Amino acid sequence: MIETPYLLFLGDAPDMLAAKVAIGIRDWRPENAIGQISLPGCGADLKLTEMSLQEGLDAGAKTLVIGVANRGGVISAEWKELLVKALELGYDIASGLHNLLRDEGELVAAAQMHGRTLHDVRVPTVAYPIANGVKRTGKRCLAVGTDCSVGKMYTALAMDAEMQKRGMKSTFRATGQTGILITGQGVPLDAVIADFMAGAVEYLTPSNDEDHWDLIEGQGSLFHVSYSGVTLALVHGGQPDALILCHEPTREHMRGLPGFDLPTLEQLKETALTLARVANPDVQVVGISVNTQHLSEDEAVSYLADVENQTGLPTVDPYRHGAGRLVDALDAI
Amino acid sequence: MIETPYLLFLGDAPDMLAAKVAIGIRDWRPENAIGQISLPGCGADLKLTEMSLQEGLDAGAKTLVIGVANRGGVISAEWKELLVKALELGYDIASGLHNLLRDEGELVAAAQMHGRTLHDVRVPTVAYPIANGVKRTGKRCLAVGTDCSVGKMYTALAMDAEMQKRGMKSTFRATGQTGILITGQGVPLDAVIADFMAGAVEYLTPSNDEDHWDLIEGQGSLFHVSYSGVTLALVHGGQPDALILCHEPTREHMRGLPGFDLPTLEQLKETALTLARVANPDVQVVGISVNTQHLSEDEAVSYLADVENQTGLPTVDPYRHGAGRLVDALDAI
Repeated sequence: MIETPYLLFLGDAPDMLAAKVAIGIRDWRPENAIGQISLPGCGADLKLTEMSLQEGLDAGAKTLVIGVANRGGVISAEWKELLVKALELGYDIASGLHNLLRDEGELVAAAQMHGRTLHDVRVPTVAYPIANGVKRTGKRCLAVGTDCSVGKMYTALAMDAEMQKRGMKSTFRATGQTGILITGQGVPLDAVIADFMAGAVEYLTPSNDEDHWDLIEGQGSLFHVSYSGVTLALVHGGQPDALILCHEPTREHMRGLPGFDLPTLEQLKETALTLARVANPDVQVVGISVNTQHLSEDEAVSYLADVENQTGLPTVDPYRHGAGRLVDALDAI
Repeated sequence: MIETPYLLFLGDAPDMLAAKVAIGIRDWRPENAIGQISLPGCGADLKLTEMSLQEGLDAGAKTLVIGVANRGGVISAEWKELLVKALELGYDIASGLHNLLRDEGELVAAAQMHGRTLHDVRVPTVAYPIANGVKRTGKRCLAVGTDCSVGKMYTALAMDAEMQKRGMKSTFRATGQTGILITGQGVPLDAVIADFMAGAVEYLTPSNDEDHWDLIEGQGSLFHVSYSGVTLALVHGGQPDALILCHEPTREHMRGLPGFDLPTLEQLKETALTLARVANPDVQVVGISVNTQHLSEDEAVSYLADVENQTGLPTVDPYRHGAGRLVDALDAI
C-alpha cells in the first residue's frame, strides 16, 4: 500500500501523452494529487500547482509518484538527482516504470539511509495463494474486452466514481500499474507467476458486504493470443456476477497482432459467459462500454444505438456520456 | 538443456508412488536411464542396475536426477552428503523439487568449486518473449483436459513414442517439471511470469518441417479455475492444428475444488475449439484419450465405445490399448 497523498513527478515529459499515469491520478483521485513537479523542458502540464519538493511536503505529500514514462528505458542522471533529494527530504517513491527503482544503487542507498520505501508497482510484493474457487460474499463486476486497450480500466473507474456519487458501496480493484498508482494498491497481474494468477485475483477481491461491488480492472482479452491467459485468470479468479463488454469500433486488427481480427461483441459475450459460468453460474452480461474517441458525436450516438438495438444491452461510452446506465444495470441485478 | 544420460537418485523414497519422476524417465527415455542409486531404507525399486556414484560415471552418466519427491519439504543431511559427493565427482544435478537446489549453500558452493551445474527445472532460465501469434511452419498437437491430472502428459508421450516407432517426425514438448526431466528440456510453464506464458509456448514450439509434429504437454484445464490461464496460454501460444480431449470418467469433482463439476467432453470440445480457432482457424479435435485406470477392462471397453459412438471421434485409453488410433487420426489431417 502506497502512502497518500502524492506529489506527481512529470520529469521532462515531452508531451501530455507521456504523462498518462499522472493524468489518471489527477482525474480519478484528485484528493491524492497535491501538486506537480517538473524538470526544465517538460512539455506536460496537469494544471496542478507546480511545487518544489519541500513545498509538496509542506502541503502534506507523502509519496513522490513518477507520473510519466521515461525516455529510452533509462532513469537519467537528472531524474536521479531529484529522486535522491526526495528520499532525503522524507518522501517514499512509487513507480510503474519497466526500469525498477530497486535496480538503481543510488536510490536504494538513499532510501535505506533515510528509512524510506521504493515502490516498484510492476513487481508483486505478496506471495499470492493458489486459487481455491470458494464462493465469496459481496458482488463483483469485471470488464472484458474484444481487444487490449479498449477502455476496460476507464470503464471500471467511471462506474466506481458513479457508484460513489450515488452512495453505493464499491471499490475499484486495480490489476495494472496505472490503476495501482491511481489507487495506491492492487495486484500487478501481468507480473504474477502463472500458477498464482487466479489466486492473486481472489486475494484482491475478498468477501465483502452483500451490497458491495468490486469493480475489477480487466486486462488483455480472451481473444488476444499474447495475453489471454491473464484475462482468463481474471474471469475465473474474480468469479464475477456481472460482465461489461468493452469495444473500440475502429480497431482494424488485434493490438500488436496484424492479421488477427477482433471478435464480434456477440462472440465475446458467448465465450466470456461460458468461461465465467465455471466460477459463477449466475453471471450475467449487463452492459456494453464502447470507446468512441475516434468517432464524431453523431457517429458515436448512432453506433451506440445500433449496438444497443442488436444486443438489447445498455450501450454507452462512459467517457462521452457517463457510466450512469451501466451502474443502473448493475444495480438491477 | 540437461546433459544426458542420467543416474536416477531414489533417495529414501517410501514407495514407488514417490518415485514418479524416475519411473517416467525409465519408461519414456530408457536410453537416458543408466542406473539407479538409493539410500538405506528406500522402498522404491525401478529394476534398473543399482550403482554407486562412481559406477554411474563409469557407465557414462552425466547428470544425477532427483527422481523422487522429498519428505516434509526439506533436503535432508543424508541427501546433501550424497549430492555434494556427486558434484565433486563431476555430475551435474537436476531437480524438480519445490525446494531449490540453488537455495542450499553447500550445493551451490560444491557446484561452483567443481564447475558443475545445478538444474532447478521448476525455475525458468530463459527470458521468454511476448507472444506474437505469427503462424509457424510444422504441425502441433495439444492435449486439453476436462480437469487437471487426467493423463495429458501420458497421452502426448505415448503419441510421440508411437510416431517415433512409425518413423514419423515428432517431438514431445515438455511444459512441466516431470516432462522436462524426462526429456532434458522444456518450459516450466506454471512458473513463468503471466505476460510471457504464451510467448514461452511459442518459443518451445518453433517453426519446423511441414511434416513434423510437436506433441505439446498440456497443463491444467480451461475449466479449472485455479489454472485455466495457463491452459489458455498453451491453446493460444501453441496454435495447435490438432486437439486431443483428455478425460478421467470417475472424477467426482474438479481436482482440489469440491463442488465444481467437470465439464462434459462436448463442452470441452466446443470451448477449446472456439478459443483455439483464434490462433489457428483450421484447428480440429481429432480424438479422445480416456484414463480408465479406475475401470475394469470390460467397463473401460464399454465406456470407450460409448464415447466414440456419441462423439464420432476415435476414443482410446493409450495406456491400456496404445496410442495408435490417435496417431492415425493425426496422420489423417
